[in-house]
Amino acid sequence: MSEFIKQDDRVLLLFEDDTTFIVQVQDNILGTHKGVVELKNLIGKAYGDRAETKNGEPFLILRPRLVDEIFKMKRKTQIVYPKDMGYILMMLDIKEGDVVIDAGVGSGAMCAAIARMIGPDGKVFAYERREDFKKIAEANIAKWGFSERVVFKLKDIKDGFDEKANAIFLDVPDPWNYIPHCHKSLLGSGNIAIVCPTTNQVQLVLKELHGHAFVDIEVWESLLRQYKPVPDRLRPFDRMVAHTAFMVFARKVNDFKEG
Amino acid sequence: MSEFIKQDDRVLLLFEDDTTFIVQVQDNILGTHKGVVELKNLIGKAYGDRAETKNGEPFLILRPRLVDEIFKMKRKTQIVYPKDMGYILMMLDIKEGDVVIDAGVGSGAMCAAIARMIGPDGKVFAYERREDFKKIAEANIAKWGFSERVVFKLKDIKDGFDEKANAIFLDVPDPWNYIPHCHKSLLGSGNIAIVCPTTNQVQLVLKELHGHAFVDIEVWESLLRQYKPVPDRLRPFDRMVAHTAFMVFARKVNDFKEG
Amino acid sequence: MSEFIKQDDRVLLLFEDDTTFIVQVQDNILGTHKGVVELKNLIGKAYGDRAETKNGEPFLILRPRLVDEIFKMKRKTQIVYPKDMGYILMMLDIKEGDVVIDAGVGSGAMCAAIARMIGPDGKVFAYERREDFKKIAEANIAKWGFSERVVFKLKDIKDGFDEKANAIFLDVPDPWNYIPHCHKSLLGSGNIAIVCPTTNQVQLVLKELHGHAFVDIEVWESLLRQYKPVPDRLRPFDRMVAHTAFMVFARKVNDFKEG
Amino acid sequence: MSEFIKQDDRVLLLFEDDTTFIVQVQDNILGTHKGVVELKNLIGKAYGDRAETKNGEPFLILRPRLVDEIFKMKRKTQIVYPKDMGYILMMLDIKEGDVVIDAGVGSGAMCAAIARMIGPDGKVFAYERREDFKKIAEANIAKWGFSERVVFKLKDIKDGFDEKANAIFLDVPDPWNYIPHCHKSLLGSGNIAIVCPTTNQVQLVLKELHGHAFVDIEVWESLLRQYKPVPDRLRPFDRMVAHTAFMVFARKVNDFKEG
Repeated sequence: MSEFIKQDDRVLLLFEDDTTFIVQVQDNILGTHKGVVELKNLIGKAYGDRAETKNGEPFLILRPRLVDEIFKMKRKTQIVYPKDMGYILMMLDIKEGDVVIDAGVGSGAMCAAIARMIGPDGKVFAYERREDFKKIAEANIAKWGFSERVVFKLKDIKDGFDEKANAIFLDVPDPWNYIPHCHKSLLGSGNIAIVCPTTNQVQLVLKELHGHAFVDIEVWESLLRQYKPVPDRLRPFDRMVAHTAFMVFARKVNDFKEG
Repeated sequence: MSEFIKQDDRVLLLFEDDTTFIVQVQDNILGTHKGVVELKNLIGKAYGDRAETKNGEPFLILRPRLVDEIFKMKRKTQIVYPKDMGYILMMLDIKEGDVVIDAGVGSGAMCAAIARMIGPDGKVFAYERREDFKKIAEANIAKWGFSERVVFKLKDIKDGFDEKANAIFLDVPDPWNYIPHCHKSLLGSGNIAIVCPTTNQVQLVLKELHGHAFVDIEVWESLLRQYKPVPDRLRPFDRMVAHTAFMVFARKVNDFKEG
Repeated sequence: MSEFIKQDDRVLLLFEDDTTFIVQVQDNILGTHKGVVELKNLIGKAYGDRAETKNGEPFLILRPRLVDEIFKMKRKTQIVYPKDMGYILMMLDIKEGDVVIDAGVGSGAMCAAIARMIGPDGKVFAYERREDFKKIAEANIAKWGFSERVVFKLKDIKDGFDEKANAIFLDVPDPWNYIPHCHKSLLGSGNIAIVCPTTNQVQLVLKELHGHAFVDIEVWESLLRQYKPVPDRLRPFDRMVAHTAFMVFARKVNDFKEG
Repeated sequence: MSEFIKQDDRVLLLFEDDTTFIVQVQDNILGTHKGVVELKNLIGKAYGDRAETKNGEPFLILRPRLVDEIFKMKRKTQIVYPKDMGYILMMLDIKEGDVVIDAGVGSGAMCAAIARMIGPDGKVFAYERREDFKKIAEANIAKWGFSERVVFKLKDIKDGFDEKANAIFLDVPDPWNYIPHCHKSLLGSGNIAIVCPTTNQVQLVLKELHGHAFVDIEVWESLLRQYKPVPDRLRPFDRMVAHTAFMVFARKVNDFKEG
């Protein structure tokens, strides 16, 4: 990855007041609260360099991380938080070449994280029944350069999935209704992750999972706490995210352990 | 990835009592508490299938996830937990083609997780000053098939690193001493993650980070809580991991914001 | 409270290996792993003093706190933990002169904590349907000196309570069945606290509470985390209690807000 | 405690929009966003009853709990939260007749909670060096009816305390400087609790405690998480208090264990 900014790169501009902008470098300008930035002037500078607006206000040029993109992206839906994303990717064991089903795709944040991990030989089948969500997700995925890896399907999943997959990520309001479809579409030993905001949903999902040939059924929640980065007064921030969703994991087997 | 078990695959055998074994399928046998398994007989079966020991005891054949491997691997060191791993990978923004420095490599768990994400075009430079740890890490990395992507260096990092990197993962007892080296070796806008078991270490690391050109300095800790997967009595397990390490993140810039 | 140990005092002996004993000072001896202690010899010593066993092994004499008593007491039941006790007492607003119903009393830990707060003019009505539990609780309450304040009732609560109370503490497996009884027995504006190990129980309790004239319905859980008290390596202990029970609180009103 | 509202009672008025007012019932009126309340008209009503403003807007009349008073009280300082208060009272083992030192008293919330537990025969010595804080605390304590039990001292504690106490609660910015004074003023086996917002303060306090004759040195923090009380969608609220203060506890002994 080049050290220097090139035409069409996405860059993150960080101002002294911690305001940030993520923008693609083209022959255009960006208007900010600190004055105008001529983006083409950034070409050839190194990532990590300082530059200035027309008003002489300094900013730093960073490479946007996926976590930055996710927090800045256009969205209409509740997103899976980075605190949960990383753990879900680990538990789903997403890797190069995997075929993954992502249903419902929402704004595409988790889809992008999966697409990045499967590499050029993998594939994500992204189901979404709402056209407006699908459009946003497609635009986000395109912007981040993963369109080749993602097949979008505007489709209700009540009739099941069209593919066999190594892993399924299920983020819909009534996940318990699709557990049989998931079992059918998972390859043997394939992993499923289901996110549920409420305990009632978890209960219904567990009931379904126990009724099908799944093993290693686990339920987790993550609490991430941030500290003020002040060496002489190190302490957590006053408030934190208390809850996003419970995460339910399981692995498909071809018949019951109890067989 | 094939649905069927082939010679040389690594497989996870799950018994009814939740005992597991991870083993490579070759022309050999595995002795278990439930009787002997002739491993070559597994070839051609599908992942997710049942099989039996010579004693007729059933087990399920699963594909080991990286998280399974990590909890089973030979190790002499405290490991980074999957609960933290996923978040660190997100915050370091590890992706295809990245060059990453991993110091000290310990038993190689984090190294493997990074190697998997960088794909065939990326590279991990894995520093470890203790020969016994390096040997274990090399063996683990080889076993998991990532040797091509990892360059091991038996070396103290007090004189710095030999490479420039997109990201650095620092897991040593005195990380504050190497912040200047990290700054020098990071490419502009590159990400660093430092894990510290104690608050005192975090304080010293923060002091150093604030003294160099880093931005987005953040300190986090994660609490993962598991629930008993019983639909009619859904509740957390009685006990949980309370602490592994604080995670400190930052991004290198080429000169100070205050510049 | 006297600084000096008197006949019949309960004392806590703390040995160098952190072993503790709680015992009443009488004309008897205590056998320990470090040798015999003649208890009457402690009379006249000051709390906080050192003494020695017959073998010359030193120990410290402390006044047992209620939390020490609770962790040492004879019990057959899951107890309410001090982490939750303090919060429940605050939310129930227990104070001098209060009349409190405690159902089921279990081993009597919460009963003791309430009895202590209500003072000599208050009263606890302690319901327990199992005779073996009631006996243990009565013995514990007697030992701690609160018998005058507690009226034990060996009785199923399915037919309700015999008293009107300022506050009710409900710790039974099916609390939702007794919410109408609780409403009837609470004085106007009286507080109720219900402990439930599972989310399913909380759901059923909430449904009942919403069906009666209660306000300020709140559900809480507490996570207490302990740190190793080492100034140069300050960090949490590795493991912690992840869950004891959810705490549900509400306040009775005489008719519905929506009324 | 009477079921009926009397002249001079403090009452909490709860409106349908969850707005609350705490006020003393006298021959006066209370102006609210829902219209005027003639307070003397409440006399003779029962706690838990409904009443109406002059505009016909309904409200409920509740007895204010101490936790309600604390969240409503006039204050200029960070307060100890009820989540921590209850636990501190348990660990300090505050009980009838105790003599307790409270330094610095701040707005008086903890002082009130202690005063309530010690009963009419106990005493709190409340140290505060800032006159404005002391005035607020005295007014709060008077309002809640505990003036007889609290002796306020406008005084810096750098020269120590004038009393011997069963327990000390220390809530000042530099608590490590007063550990020797605390040791001197505690009766043998007496309990101390120190609240520290930062890890650096905890480290310094621990260093001092280890240098004096204290045992059972413990450091805790509490995380209280609240759930939305909706039976069909039971889940935690999105955000929570992440941190107020670390709590350090210890018990005085008359000479060292190692002695």
